[in-house]
Amino acid sequence: MPMSRISLLKGKSPDYLRALGDSLQHAMEESFNVPKNDRFQLVHQHEPHEMMFDRTYEGGPRSDDLVLIHITIGKPRSTELKQAFYRRLVALLAESPGLAPEDVMIVISPSQGDDWSFGGGRPAASLLGARS
Amino acid sequence: MPMSRISLLKGKSPDYLRALGDSLQHAMEESFNVPKNDRFQLVHQHEPHEMMFDRTYEGGPRSDDLVLIHITIGKPRSTELKQAFYRRLVALLAESPGLAPEDVMIVISPSQGDDWSFGGGRPAASLLGARS
Amino acid sequence: MPMSRISLLKGKSPDYLRALGDSLQHAMEESFNVPKNDRFQLVHQHEPHEMMFDRTYEGGPRSDDLVLIHITIGKPRSTELKQAFYRRLVALLAESPGLAPEDVMIVISPSQGDDWSFGGGRPAASLLGARS
Repeated sequence: MPMSRISLLKGKSPDYLRALGDSLQHAMEESFNVPKNDRFQLVHQHEPHEMMFDRTYEGGPRSDDLVLIHITIGKPRSTELKQAFYRRLVALLAESPGLAPEDVMIVISPSQGDDWSFGGGRPAASLLGARS
Repeated sequence: MPMSRISLLKGKSPDYLRALGDSLQHAMEESFNVPKNDRFQLVHQHEPHEMMFDRTYEGGPRSDDLVLIHITIGKPRSTELKQAFYRRLVALLAESPGLAPEDVMIVISPSQGDDWSFGGGRPAASLLGARS
Repeated sequence: MPMSRISLLKGKSPDYLRALGDSLQHAMEESFNVPKNDRFQLVHQHEPHEMMFDRTYEGGPRSDDLVLIHITIGKPRSTELKQAFYRRLVALLAESPGLAPEDVMIVISPSQGDDWSFGGGRPAASLLGARS
């Protein structure tokens, strides 16, 4: 049920963006209780003057490769699960596309199961049973 | 009070986007307790490699016409109201601009009335009385 | 801990966008309990047909200079603090870049401290102590 917005500076290749999305999806399925194939990712590419960020606040130094991953989730997760997911996501992004851990920023926004319709105007299946 | 982000692949005409926004607004005013003219819609057009989504997870098959509608609301709505809204929105989008129901995905994000200022640095009127 | 999306019509200069971001950051640090240098701002520039908004709903008249500021925060703020922030933000934007108060719309979305990782896969420092 997550929907992710991935923001970064313009100039990366389609292959690089695909690798970013793949690693994000793998981390979610492995460590964030996300069902297989529940994948909805939007990439926002910005000009340098459209992305203003501090290079060292609570981390860094951040480079021009900074990726800000903003995830809207559809059910609650524990603090422990979120933290395990952060670690796993950063590790997978370091492998592919080869992103420095300090260049990964993550923000999660909440919503509820009844806030989602995946298509056809139907409520999400999770409302009727288990998952996502 | 809702603010909507409408994400889709690049290439649709301004008229098509206007029709999308019009149908979204009509569905909100008819079925989602949104006041007349309370309209704030942002369209994000993406390249194919900037929009990664599963074609069949909980629905579909989704085509390249997929529209992901992400709505931030300013007051709570019941599950029943949300579900009626999903049905109405999909029906109106099928009429205009002629979007297949399986190509409509909807995500709602919560906020509160005091999270909104419509202008002038003033709090939203709903804080002082009724609506939105 | 806030992360802001700043949406407006295409065509402003990089200096104008920088001034927008600077004033937003100043208002946050002065009036919204945001730590110095906790700055993460994304600008989304839209074509006219990608930004559909009512010119007079609860304010206005809004011009083509409308700026919609969508802020995701990481800890709760009181209604009073939010309202003081709206006033301060509008005042600073009127000074620089010279934005009309009726052309400033603000929406805040909630999240929690454990929803943030600023880098390295680490939880936000606020989880371990005070701020942001």
